[in-house]
Amino acid sequence: MDFLTWMETMQQRSEENLERRMPSAGIAPQRLHTAMRYAALGGGKRVRPLLCYATGELTGADPLRVDNAAAAVELIHVYSLVHDDLPCMDDDVLRRGKPTCHVEFDDATALLVGDALQSLAFQSLAKNVPGMDAARQLDMLLLLAQASGSRGMAGGQAIDLAAVGQSLTLSELEFMHIHKTGALIRAAVLLGAYCGAPLDAAAWVQLDHFAKTAGLLFQVVDDILDSEADTATLGKTAGKDAVHNKPTYVNLLGIAQAKEKAAELRAQAHSALAPFGLAARRLGELTNFIVDRSF
Amino acid sequence: MDFLTWMETMQQRSEENLERRMPSAGIAPQRLHTAMRYAALGGGKRVRPLLCYATGELTGADPLRVDNAAAAVELIHVYSLVHDDLPCMDDDVLRRGKPTCHVEFDDATALLVGDALQSLAFQSLAKNVPGMDAARQLDMLLLLAQASGSRGMAGGQAIDLAAVGQSLTLSELEFMHIHKTGALIRAAVLLGAYCGAPLDAAAWVQLDHFAKTAGLLFQVVDDILDSEADTATLGKTAGKDAVHNKPTYVNLLGIAQAKEKAAELRAQAHSALAPFGLAARRLGELTNFIVDRSF
Repeated sequence: MDFLTWMETMQQRSEENLERRMPSAGIAPQRLHTAMRYAALGGGKRVRPLLCYATGELTGADPLRVDNAAAAVELIHVYSLVHDDLPCMDDDVLRRGKPTCHVEFDDATALLVGDALQSLAFQSLAKNVPGMDAARQLDMLLLLAQASGSRGMAGGQAIDLAAVGQSLTLSELEFMHIHKTGALIRAAVLLGAYCGAPLDAAAWVQLDHFAKTAGLLFQVVDDILDSEADTATLGKTAGKDAVHNKPTYVNLLGIAQAKEKAAELRAQAHSALAPFGLAARRLGELTNFIVDRSF
Repeated sequence: MDFLTWMETMQQRSEENLERRMPSAGIAPQRLHTAMRYAALGGGKRVRPLLCYATGELTGADPLRVDNAAAAVELIHVYSLVHDDLPCMDDDVLRRGKPTCHVEFDDATALLVGDALQSLAFQSLAKNVPGMDAARQLDMLLLLAQASGSRGMAGGQAIDLAAVGQSLTLSELEFMHIHKTGALIRAAVLLGAYCGAPLDAAAWVQLDHFAKTAGLLFQVVDDILDSEADTATLGKTAGKDAVHNKPTYVNLLGIAQAKEKAAELRAQAHSALAPFGLAARRLGELTNFIVDRSF
C-alpha cells in the first residue's frame, strides 16, 4: 500500500474509532454531547493517531489493539485545542475550517467539552484490550497522564502564556515546545509501540529519541506554516503568532534558518529510525509528510 | 478512636497525601504549579477522600493502599471547583475561605490548573500500588473516568447550566444532581472498596446503593446550607443558588420538606449499610457528619 492510501485508510479508521467512542448527541446532556462531537469529529489531520498506528506497525501490533491508544491521544489533543481557543487563552474563532467550539456553542459549554474529552481519553485507554497485559496498560495510562499534565502539554501552555511579548532564547523556546507539542507527540509514538511486541531497552531509547525529535520537528513546521500559509489553507487563523506577539522559530531564527532547522530535525528523525529498518517505513513516511504538508 | 479523631487523622493524611503528589512550586512552570497548590492544598473538608478511607476500612484495606484513589478523587473534585468558579461558569470569587483561583491568579491559569489537576488525578490512580491487581486498577480508572466525564460530573455541570432560570421537576433536579455531585461521591465510595478484599456481587450492589444515596444526601444538605448558612461559615459565597436563580431542593420543596428529604435519605443510607455491621461504622458516622455539618 502506498503511503497516501495508508494514511487515508488510517485517517478514516481514526474518525470511525473516535465516532464510536463519542456519546450520541441524542443522550443527555444533549447540548454537551453535540458540542463534543462537533469539536472532535469531521476534521483534523489526525497526526497523533497516525503516529500511534505507525509505531504499532513497527512493533507488529494489530491496529485493533492500537485503537484505544489512538483515540485517547487524539481526544487529549482535541480537548487542548478547545480550551486553547477560549477567549481567556488564544481567543480564536476558526479551527479545522469551522467556527471554534465556544463560538459555535458558548464559553461554558466549550470549557465542559474540553473537560469531558479529557475524561473520555482516559476512559478509552482504561478499557480492556483483549490479550494486552493490564500492567502494561497502566504504564500507558501513566505515560499519557504525565504527557498531558503540568509537566507536559498543560505546562507547555502555561509557559506559552507567560512567553507572550517576551523575547526568548532558542533553548527557552525549545523548552516550551518540548512541553506544549512535543510531550503529546512523544506519547503518541510510544503508546503505539506499547501495543505490539515489547522492545528491548536500546530500541526503546532509540524510538524515544525519534519521538522527541518528531515533536520538535512538528512544531518548527507549524511555526513556518503559520507565517507562510494563508488561513483558508490552514483551516485555522494564519499569522496569529505574530499578532499575539508569540515567540516562534520563525521570528527567532528567520524563515530561512527555521527551514534549515526543520531539514536538520528531519534528518535526525530518519537516523533514529534507521536501526528499525523496514519496520519503521510508515514512521519515516509520516515524518516526511509532517515536513512537507502545507496545512 | 472516636469519629472526630479519626476524621481529623484522615483529613491530615489526605492533605499530606495530596501535598506529596503536587509538583513543587519551584519547578517550571512555576506559576502554574503555584496555582495548582493554591487550589488543592490547605482547605476543604476532604469528604471524598474520607469516603474512600471509610470504605477502605469496610473492605479491610490498609490506608496505604487507599492513598492513590483518595488523591485521585479529590483532585477531580478540586479541578471541577476551579473550573466552576470561572467567569464563564458560576463566576465566583470565594472558595474555601480564600479568593478563587482565577481571582488570585488569572482566568487562563485557572483553566490550566483545572486541566492539569484532572491529568494528575489519573496519573495518581495509574501509579503502581504494591500488591494490587493491575486489572482491578484499570477497573478503578475506568470508574473514575466515567464518573468525571460527560455522563457523570461534567455532564451534571452541563445540565446545571441549562437549568439556570428554568423550573425543574423533582425528578429532573435529581437527575442533575445524580450527575453533578452524585457520580463522584459514588466513585469515592466504590474506589475505596476496590482497595481491600473483593466484595461479592450482592454486597457490591448494597454498597453501590449506599453510595448513590449518600451522593444525593450530600447535595440536599448542600442546598439547605446554601440557603441557611452565612458566607463566613461556608467559606464560599452563601445564597448564590438564589442569586443565580438555580433550581435547588430548597426552592423546589421548601426548607421544611428539604430537611425531611435529608432525614429520609440518611435513614436509607444507614439501612444500606446495616448488612455490613461494624465494618461500616466509619461510613455510618461519616454519613451523619455529612448531614449534621454546618459548612
